[in-house]
Amino acid sequence: MDLSKYQQSFLSYLQDQDFKREPKNLYEPIDYILQLGGKRLRPILTLIACDIFSSEYTKALPAAMAVETFHNFTLVHDDIMDDAPLRRGKETVHEKWDINTGILSGDAMLILAYQYFENYKPEVFQKLAKLFSKTALEVCDGQQLDVDFETRNDVTINEYIHMITLKTSVLVGAALKMGAIVAEVEESQADLLYDFGLNLGIAFQLQDDYLDTFGNPETFGKQIGGDIIENKKTFLYLQSLASATSEDKEKLQFFYNQKLEENTEKVLEVTKIFERNNIPELTQNLIQEYTTKSFDFLNALNISEEAKKSLISFGENLMYRKV
Amino acid sequence: MDLSKYQQSFLSYLQDQDFKREPKNLYEPIDYILQLGGKRLRPILTLIACDIFSSEYTKALPAAMAVETFHNFTLVHDDIMDDAPLRRGKETVHEKWDINTGILSGDAMLILAYQYFENYKPEVFQKLAKLFSKTALEVCDGQQLDVDFETRNDVTINEYIHMITLKTSVLVGAALKMGAIVAEVEESQADLLYDFGLNLGIAFQLQDDYLDTFGNPETFGKQIGGDIIENKKTFLYLQSLASATSEDKEKLQFFYNQKLEENTEKVLEVTKIFERNNIPELTQNLIQEYTTKSFDFLNALNISEEAKKSLISFGENLMYRKV
Repeated sequence: MDLSKYQQSFLSYLQDQDFKREPKNLYEPIDYILQLGGKRLRPILTLIACDIFSSEYTKALPAAMAVETFHNFTLVHDDIMDDAPLRRGKETVHEKWDINTGILSGDAMLILAYQYFENYKPEVFQKLAKLFSKTALEVCDGQQLDVDFETRNDVTINEYIHMITLKTSVLVGAALKMGAIVAEVEESQADLLYDFGLNLGIAFQLQDDYLDTFGNPETFGKQIGGDIIENKKTFLYLQSLASATSEDKEKLQFFYNQKLEENTEKVLEVTKIFERNNIPELTQNLIQEYTTKSFDFLNALNISEEAKKSLISFGENLMYRKV
Repeated sequence: MDLSKYQQSFLSYLQDQDFKREPKNLYEPIDYILQLGGKRLRPILTLIACDIFSSEYTKALPAAMAVETFHNFTLVHDDIMDDAPLRRGKETVHEKWDINTGILSGDAMLILAYQYFENYKPEVFQKLAKLFSKTALEVCDGQQLDVDFETRNDVTINEYIHMITLKTSVLVGAALKMGAIVAEVEESQADLLYDFGLNLGIAFQLQDDYLDTFGNPETFGKQIGGDIIENKKTFLYLQSLASATSEDKEKLQFFYNQKLEENTEKVLEVTKIFERNNIPELTQNLIQEYTTKSFDFLNALNISEEAKKSLISFGENLMYRKV
């Protein structure tokens, strides 16, 4: 599938946005984070979805821009909450400016996202904004659960899947559905696309967990083992607590109770625990399960075989990515 | 004007909102700040405006709730930025929980505000959401200007009026206009109501500046002289820089360059500077100017004399308030 057409179209639309407004201390950080790059996966999905059902995918550009603006708003506020110094290898907004600027510029981005829907007629506007509000609130819920999980020791795998569904996957589903709403397809078709995206999003996040430990250090963008160093309760960790030998469970919990300066041994040992308890395979199985589920929704869609193949290849590229 | 009918109606609608949701660390702070009280002026204005043009003011309750939720969202985020420990005599959200909770609960409130518009049909929904987004962004602009002014020494009176217009008054205008939108009156009438609110809001904020120094300590809710202690560049300060004797200007700037533990003398001396340079009267004149302007817009409205009188008495009560 040739994504470059959508990507170029989106990037050129993004360039045309005027964030050189006053007061500049409010809008410069918005311009900065939106220009920082990233894969632009979500807005591209909005454009693809519209293209499948309509002759004019460019009319989905404002909706795509809303999705990307919202996504970047969550990054700005999450980075404050996580005290993260870097984002895509560059300074985070609150680091480059300050926390207050990060809060206020983030707030403005959330409002700006809604404003992009004003490009549509009232019925479409309402559908987009309703889906957007529901999704945005779910993302907040997911972020809160993620924070709550940090201090809980009884998080189940189901709760974890629920959390990543809210924090990550609903936006993937919504990005696709928004493209379908702009194309004005019937609700049932739009919903199938949503469910395709939702399940693909879960698989995507699980793949993220997997790559964080088992990715190729040469091609993986972040530091390998970052989740282990941060004691993050990812699927790999929770699955180990559920199915590892009791000796390994104890060992794992011992490591996860530590915050160290030097983490080479910790990452090595925890990786070994994962490996000898078959966690990589169990993770890949679950990823496969959600991918298959997502493709089932896709196949139920009333669209051309060619369009299905394109979306499947898009999904497979995401799943078998190394970065 | 009997406001108690609107107030009771709004408070009972507020009580019916279910913020006892999960995750509770996200929704409890929202419930807390919304229950903290306040005069509920903005939502009451939405109800009054609807009542003037329609037989059923209760249909404006969701819009009124959106306005109040948004207003409280700004309080939560502003209190973080100002590092304020107290709000309405109680702990602020970030003080009672923590900064991250304040950020995330605030974000959720902004989204919840938009969701209240889903109670209306698409045309009304779009009008409300458009006005809301425009207003919310202006409030962000105003907050940023307020922050910027803290470190600037060349703020003009016009810039100050522009800042308070954005930070405070646009929401008063919008609250009224939303009631008119719900009642589906013609745009020109809704706009007159907006301009009435906008100018009344400016007068209201100037009165706030005035009372902060010249209010009655017995009835004024906050500490008299708070703005002076904080070196806030209010209208009183800026007008002094514009028209006080050069000796008093120097003296004023000397005091405004200090952060003190003991402020009794500072408040006393600055108050004297204001008084001997006629600042109280100049402030009252400007308040009168904006009040008159707001009543002119009101008089141009095509509504009953009785309704006009009610709104005028509402405005006068605000202006001649002591708290």
